[in-house]
Amino acid sequence: MIRTHNAGSLRAADAGSTVTLAGWVARRRDHGGVIFVDLRDGSGVVQVVFREEDAHALRNEFCVKVVGEVTRRPAGNENPELPTGEVEVTVVDLEVLSEAAPLPLPVDDQIEAGDDIRLRYRYLDLRRSGPANALRLRSRASQLARGVLHERDFLEIETPTLTRSTPEGARDFLVPVRLQPGSWYALPQSPQLFKQLLMVGGMERYYQIARCYRDEDFRADRQPEFTQLDIEMSFVTEDDVIDLGEAIVSTLWKDLAGHEITRPIPRITWHDAMARYGSDKPDLRYGVELTELTGYLRGTEFRVFAGAIDAGGYVGAVVMPGGAAQSRKELDGWQDWAKARGARGLAYVVLDAETGEARGPVAKNLSAEHLGGLADAVGAKPGDAVFFAASATTREAQELLGAARVEIAKRSGLIDENAWAFCWVVDAPMFERTDEGGWTAVHHPFTSPNSEWVDRFEEAPDRALAYAYDIVCNGNEIGGGSIRIHRGDVQKRVFDLLGITPEEAQDKFGFLLEAFKYGAPPHGGIAFGWDRVCMLLAGADSIREVIAFPKTRGGFDPLTSAPTPITAQQRTEAGIDAKPKPAATAHTGTAGPAAPVADPV
Amino acid sequence: MIRTHNAGSLRAADAGSTVTLAGWVARRRDHGGVIFVDLRDGSGVVQVVFREEDAHALRNEFCVKVVGEVTRRPAGNENPELPTGEVEVTVVDLEVLSEAAPLPLPVDDQIEAGDDIRLRYRYLDLRRSGPANALRLRSRASQLARGVLHERDFLEIETPTLTRSTPEGARDFLVPVRLQPGSWYALPQSPQLFKQLLMVGGMERYYQIARCYRDEDFRADRQPEFTQLDIEMSFVTEDDVIDLGEAIVSTLWKDLAGHEITRPIPRITWHDAMARYGSDKPDLRYGVELTELTGYLRGTEFRVFAGAIDAGGYVGAVVMPGGAAQSRKELDGWQDWAKARGARGLAYVVLDAETGEARGPVAKNLSAEHLGGLADAVGAKPGDAVFFAASATTREAQELLGAARVEIAKRSGLIDENAWAFCWVVDAPMFERTDEGGWTAVHHPFTSPNSEWVDRFEEAPDRALAYAYDIVCNGNEIGGGSIRIHRGDVQKRVFDLLGITPEEAQDKFGFLLEAFKYGAPPHGGIAFGWDRVCMLLAGADSIREVIAFPKTRGGFDPLTSAPTPITAQQRTEAGIDAKPKPAATAHTGTAGPAAPVADPV
Repeated sequence: MIRTHNAGSLRAADAGSTVTLAGWVARRRDHGGVIFVDLRDGSGVVQVVFREEDAHALRNEFCVKVVGEVTRRPAGNENPELPTGEVEVTVVDLEVLSEAAPLPLPVDDQIEAGDDIRLRYRYLDLRRSGPANALRLRSRASQLARGVLHERDFLEIETPTLTRSTPEGARDFLVPVRLQPGSWYALPQSPQLFKQLLMVGGMERYYQIARCYRDEDFRADRQPEFTQLDIEMSFVTEDDVIDLGEAIVSTLWKDLAGHEITRPIPRITWHDAMARYGSDKPDLRYGVELTELTGYLRGTEFRVFAGAIDAGGYVGAVVMPGGAAQSRKELDGWQDWAKARGARGLAYVVLDAETGEARGPVAKNLSAEHLGGLADAVGAKPGDAVFFAASATTREAQELLGAARVEIAKRSGLIDENAWAFCWVVDAPMFERTDEGGWTAVHHPFTSPNSEWVDRFEEAPDRALAYAYDIVCNGNEIGGGSIRIHRGDVQKRVFDLLGITPEEAQDKFGFLLEAFKYGAPPHGGIAFGWDRVCMLLAGADSIREVIAFPKTRGGFDPLTSAPTPITAQQRTEAGIDAKPKPAATAHTGTAGPAAPVADPV
Repeated sequence: MIRTHNAGSLRAADAGSTVTLAGWVARRRDHGGVIFVDLRDGSGVVQVVFREEDAHALRNEFCVKVVGEVTRRPAGNENPELPTGEVEVTVVDLEVLSEAAPLPLPVDDQIEAGDDIRLRYRYLDLRRSGPANALRLRSRASQLARGVLHERDFLEIETPTLTRSTPEGARDFLVPVRLQPGSWYALPQSPQLFKQLLMVGGMERYYQIARCYRDEDFRADRQPEFTQLDIEMSFVTEDDVIDLGEAIVSTLWKDLAGHEITRPIPRITWHDAMARYGSDKPDLRYGVELTELTGYLRGTEFRVFAGAIDAGGYVGAVVMPGGAAQSRKELDGWQDWAKARGARGLAYVVLDAETGEARGPVAKNLSAEHLGGLADAVGAKPGDAVFFAASATTREAQELLGAARVEIAKRSGLIDENAWAFCWVVDAPMFERTDEGGWTAVHHPFTSPNSEWVDRFEEAPDRALAYAYDIVCNGNEIGGGSIRIHRGDVQKRVFDLLGITPEEAQDKFGFLLEAFKYGAPPHGGIAFGWDRVCMLLAGADSIREVIAFPKTRGGFDPLTSAPTPITAQQRTEAGIDAKPKPAATAHTGTAGPAAPVADPV
């Protein structure tokens, strides 16, 4: 090593030692003939003192090597804020390892900089303690999770990333194959099918911190590539996977957030979560539960509610404590908020703080009887506001109220930012209606119905429940998984219900179905959104903060300027415009032996 | 868990316990009313005994759950070969978890199967102990290496895999970007540039077990995607990186091969390796060193040798102990061998086992004096054969002799298959001549000249040496790295010598050069070819054996049939045929802010 000590490690006990340090000039202060420099390296900062002229040339972020003696700071000059604050290093030799041009982004923890400039000069951004610590935390999180998994005999297995296009939710990124012109690999959206094949292969306990790819329209916090902690186990029940998941999150939160998670983490059914919180990822740091009023308001003449009730739908409400004190403008603001979410508005009444009397646009539409019992029905007190939602589609109304609930908590300051609230959302529905009136899988078509429904999900597909579970932290889904179907007969019935013909199934999933013919074990798993887990642990508000080199929206990298156009030669060589040769055999799991490499065009 | 015990864990002490096991039917033997089944799970095998009819339906690789009592086997029926051989499980309840169709690939360790069938049914192949153990070993290897690195305060940092095309050796795999039609990502050939940026960012100690991609013509043992253990450190010298590398390999070999590596691992300069072994990755499990004869044979009238010597080239020899006993056909075989390597032939003499007299095609071309001293000059004994190579290009002749050396060792049985011989090859040349008479970097253009050459490599580029080092195990390069240039002036001089103009440098590496302006620390690193490391540890002869789902030559996956043609819709959506918008700014490191998402076409 070029240095003998880490700058941040020096203490009073080192006084008298001669040390060689190497790092960056963090701050320079000239005091007449003496120059003080904060020297920063990966371990921290120490004050170094120059009595020579040559330090005058030093500017911020010069990379330097110094030799000097550790001395106690003069009494009264100690800096208790700094771990090294009792000492300083008196320099006898300085070597500039490399100079720094004027900085486009100051290396200063106090300065707020825009995302574009931070990402373009990410290497300067990472010299700041916040960004650097976020990456340190992520490294530690991965190490901790691996520890939990290896302790439990999991194997880390790498699955391919140049693979076959799979029909999951989003679009695949594609890669032209020069050696088989006209053919393309897809980058995997997840290792799902491979991890299931590993279970068929008897590997029993698999994990991988896996890079995944989804070509989605970029929403606020999406990256084209992301990381998941991916896990699969054989011979397990839902409880086993949940238990493992809890072991991982409790280890992470204890070590990295100093928070002891109470186990077992509460479980809430998907239907309860929707009914009580209007969300399949409820934030349990606060109450503000929803109340269903479909029964209570039956018979109302208010058209909006009656319409929903008559259509077999749902009317419900959520209470904003103290919401009656809102100004007219604030109450109107809720209408804008609702419209921005795609709703027509948000009906409400306010309860007079003194009398408890219901006022507001909806009040005059409700009968005296309905109004009179409302506060009790929804658990409101005088001075509160009551927001309503009604829809022929229960889920739509619940989700509006669920979003209102989150917004109420924010506006009313009900969120304890230091709290951690975890839950499992279990018993998710197997199927939901498609716009065309058929059925689609809520998770993926390999998710197993639970024991109650496995033999009769066709009777009421809308009510059939899956062995599917999500883990939620403070309203963020941080992981999810399911027990998979391992029996061919069940899989066939699910495909039948989904309207997937045997031919289609063969074409899309042939190799997996083929594998399941040979003694597939019962298996299930979970995947954690690793970027999001690390984001929460780091207390960051974007996954970009825990990614070394993230991209902006649209998938652009301000640092390297990727993506770029390619040359005509690259295009020709990669075979991008080649016509595929007619396949010698169908491209399915039961295809014949490997097609030979096609001739170059 | 569906089971209470692992099959392979049962011992005599468990006798009397009732256990639930789950696994696969490995073998069934019917003995009248009693059926014995070897039940296999991830932990091993145990014998289970059925006295009921229902076991008749069991076939190989059915996945089953059994409940039964552990009993000691009757005296004399123990199987000492099996860890569970003292006991058996008498089944009281059987549940078939899933059936198995007749197997296209028997799950039998004894059966040799072709690669195509093994990869197509990889999930059956992995139920065999050899393939499964190879993946277990790989998982353990990664864990061990991580342990060494975390102990030394390395951070695991994930770098992007959707990135910018970089001008390294091989072709990039390309990925069209739907949201910026006409623009493409490249999959990284290595994290090289990003890990250097992390060093500029002050992260100081980085590692990653990184997926890398090279679109090469497939040689015997290449995969389009491969894994490297990638490492970079700041403020280090070559010795520091080498020391870390040794810590990693010695940990791996001790734990996984039971072999204690003697440290320090010997270092040999690149020039010595070429001179003594005709290879930059010498196999040191045996001797058979090369001898240079350029001086000894000076003045010879043999045209082939004289031509090489007069051209300033090289003549050398390698001795095959006992090689004089080869038949004429065997000696002719060497000519075919040499021609297959692209040489014109392989000159030789054999030394008569009795008289030591030199015979053979070359003998009559050499003077009596040259012949008389030859045995002493090359260290040959009567009965040996001496193979010669001569070329105006020293390296060409050395490499031919080096390959002959390896072949001699194989044919003469000189290789101790149980031996492990490691070395570092250091002091590699910085530059080599291009066909056009210019210079090219032997490693990459960021490799630092060593201290002896850094200020004067222009004086003799062919002799300038780099701080570059490879680690070699039994003739396989398993890792390599270098100290990088961190000073702008040195980098500029290297580019000048390589004929890279400032404009080209800016276009190709602009973002890295820009980063180096801001106080880049001295840094260096190493990358291990993880597939190859695991292959050697597993005693396998192909990296495919240590990859869960490898591809065949040409990049085809017999299991999923990837790659495949894509649909016209995928093609349109992905923007494959879109023309790139003229860039608002040049695509370089100093480019302006992110280009907005281009309009879809």
